[in-house]
Amino acid sequence: MATLGLIEYEDASPEVRAVYDDIMATRGTDWINNFWKALAHDPATLRRTWESIKEIMSAGALDPLTKEMVYLAVSVTNQCPYCIASHTAAARKAGMTGAMFAELMAVVGMANETNRLVSGYQVEIDERFRT
Amino acid sequence: MATLGLIEYEDASPEVRAVYDDIMATRGTDWINNFWKALAHDPATLRRTWESIKEIMSAGALDPLTKEMVYLAVSVTNQCPYCIASHTAAARKAGMTGAMFAELMAVVGMANETNRLVSGYQVEIDERFRT
Amino acid sequence: MATLGLIEYEDASPEVRAVYDDIMATRGTDWINNFWKALAHDPATLRRTWESIKEIMSAGALDPLTKEMVYLAVSVTNQCPYCIASHTAAARKAGMTGAMFAELMAVVGMANETNRLVSGYQVEIDERFRT
Amino acid sequence: MATLGLIEYEDASPEVRAVYDDIMATRGTDWINNFWKALAHDPATLRRTWESIKEIMSAGALDPLTKEMVYLAVSVTNQCPYCIASHTAAARKAGMTGAMFAELMAVVGMANETNRLVSGYQVEIDERFRT
Amino acid sequence: MATLGLIEYEDASPEVRAVYDDIMATRGTDWINNFWKALAHDPATLRRTWESIKEIMSAGALDPLTKEMVYLAVSVTNQCPYCIASHTAAARKAGMTGAMFAELMAVVGMANETNRLVSGYQVEIDERFRT
Amino acid sequence: MATLGLIEYEDASPEVRAVYDDIMATRGTDWINNFWKALAHDPATLRRTWESIKEIMSAGALDPLTKEMVYLAVSVTNQCPYCIASHTAAARKAGMTGAMFAELMAVVGMANETNRLVSGYQVEIDERFRT
Repeated sequence: MATLGLIEYEDASPEVRAVYDDIMATRGTDWINNFWKALAHDPATLRRTWESIKEIMSAGALDPLTKEMVYLAVSVTNQCPYCIASHTAAARKAGMTGAMFAELMAVVGMANETNRLVSGYQVEIDERFRT
Repeated sequence: MATLGLIEYEDASPEVRAVYDDIMATRGTDWINNFWKALAHDPATLRRTWESIKEIMSAGALDPLTKEMVYLAVSVTNQCPYCIASHTAAARKAGMTGAMFAELMAVVGMANETNRLVSGYQVEIDERFRT
Repeated sequence: MATLGLIEYEDASPEVRAVYDDIMATRGTDWINNFWKALAHDPATLRRTWESIKEIMSAGALDPLTKEMVYLAVSVTNQCPYCIASHTAAARKAGMTGAMFAELMAVVGMANETNRLVSGYQVEIDERFRT
Repeated sequence: MATLGLIEYEDASPEVRAVYDDIMATRGTDWINNFWKALAHDPATLRRTWESIKEIMSAGALDPLTKEMVYLAVSVTNQCPYCIASHTAAARKAGMTGAMFAELMAVVGMANETNRLVSGYQVEIDERFRT
Repeated sequence: MATLGLIEYEDASPEVRAVYDDIMATRGTDWINNFWKALAHDPATLRRTWESIKEIMSAGALDPLTKEMVYLAVSVTNQCPYCIASHTAAARKAGMTGAMFAELMAVVGMANETNRLVSGYQVEIDERFRT
Repeated sequence: MATLGLIEYEDASPEVRAVYDDIMATRGTDWINNFWKALAHDPATLRRTWESIKEIMSAGALDPLTKEMVYLAVSVTNQCPYCIASHTAAARKAGMTGAMFAELMAVVGMANETNRLVSGYQVEIDERFRT
């Protein structure tokens, strides 16, 4: 489904095709996943979102694998099924092993637990943690 | 404040002191932050939570710095002020630079944005992402 | 499915039928969606929820279309698939075009991103914003 | 603060005072907490919210203490500081001891952890759990 | 599916089987639900999670039924489909009736509503609620 | 505070000043709020975030006031204090009256409530809502 449907490459405008081409070239793949085909109904958002992701996810002070795992950690915390499926695939492609995935999930689970313990016990921030 | 108050080392039972001692020894510090002092009202939860964190956050397939940054990413997604303050401090201690922090925040922000775009557009999981 | 099953009109008590009748009359439709059929197992909650929605969603200082789009924006932020599907339909019926939907999603995505940037950077409220 | 300010009893309209009076009579107290004083700017929402809470939180198949603890559990999961403070007070008044609070927090923390493990591992619902 | 697949009893290592055996013995059942079969790829997390749940969910200051309903309330707030399905089943097994389920949902819904009203109106914590 | 501190105009690099200047010109104000001063530590994110917000929040199929109210609705759902304070101010400046604010909050509260009722009752999407 998808609210407005999916726009395939052959039905896309030149503006949308340019983004699709850049996605495939940047990722070294020959296909486009559904997220972009859905966003293509709004070319401005398609372009802006892709440009932002391309800039943010490229290597910098953090390597691409770490970034993909952080993306997955956020998606798991938000419990977004599509995002979890797509970013698990992306993280694996970037080098995440099964053991790394398992440790990542353990950290995500633990953080979600202690976030609530802290809130529930109404713990005040230690003076030393104030920057 | 803190719902049940904070238990200082000098007022703690031997069971609680043993956990405090292990926290300080493991972290190489001479103080205990408020989270543990609040949890100390429930020694079973104090012990279980500390043992779990100690096991989960130690080096394994992922290094401690990556784990601390993931912990921070989850805490930011959940918007837990105490957790953000304490895990920013922990991640810095583990080696997170200002540049790494900035890139981490950019990824966390982006993931939170696309998680909602995906949900809002009701995008179906691509067959290739199904494991 | 639905935890307690769905109660169809022909199987409903007079109390439940009265709510179903009012829903259809208010909406100018001849059917009841699953949400109400599931809630009908708890007639008090069915009635209270319907009365509240009817009061809140009617025209006032805000028009019904704006209210439906806000309802959708919240449902997307919470990532509730049923709510997104049903309120997308409701908003369209109230006049939301594809272009309006696309801009709505862009705002929802952006707000979810900056909410986390603000939290992650631990930004304090400006004096001018305090009311 | 509070966005629109707080409306004290002496400044309230007869409609608002009637709700305030019912809150105090129902709770057996002689004061109104800030939540209601803020909502009083919208008498319709004030009345509807109070009537709903009064109906929902009274004894039924679940006793008032259990209901207050569930309210607190939700507020902790959502990390709402005001709600945590006010419903901790309400639950204590209804009989929650320190030991009950501690066990409640342990369950809330654990549930928040496993909710993410389940999502992260993309676990499918067992046939036996489908109703 | 499940990211890493499910590990059945007959394919499990002795370490994993020991946990499976304890789960079945503790629960008085002869089957293992998918959550544990997915976690079994990480025996350390499997063991730690089970030991924690066993400790937390047993009778104490709160009875097991209350704990199961709180677990369900959190899962509903987080909107985790698997968790809702499995903990609805567990709560029913522990004695939750349809009427109790309905009241539980009413409280969860109400708390999620007022949590946002409080935040939206920027209500400050009453002095009396500060502990 | 703010994790990395705030960068004032007089201490900003030409790149950051250019963004500050554009923010003030676009908004017709002579000051910069803390969010941007915190983000300024990461000029790439500062620029990208500002360009995105400027593009998204300008008049289009939806008017600026509606967009600001949607931004506020999301911020309230996420319970982000800074975002609620700043976007309440922005929405008021764009024309939101007290009555509009009150109705907006009522819709946000209601949506958060029914999102959980739907999830808790495990309601399936009606065939008619599938697009």
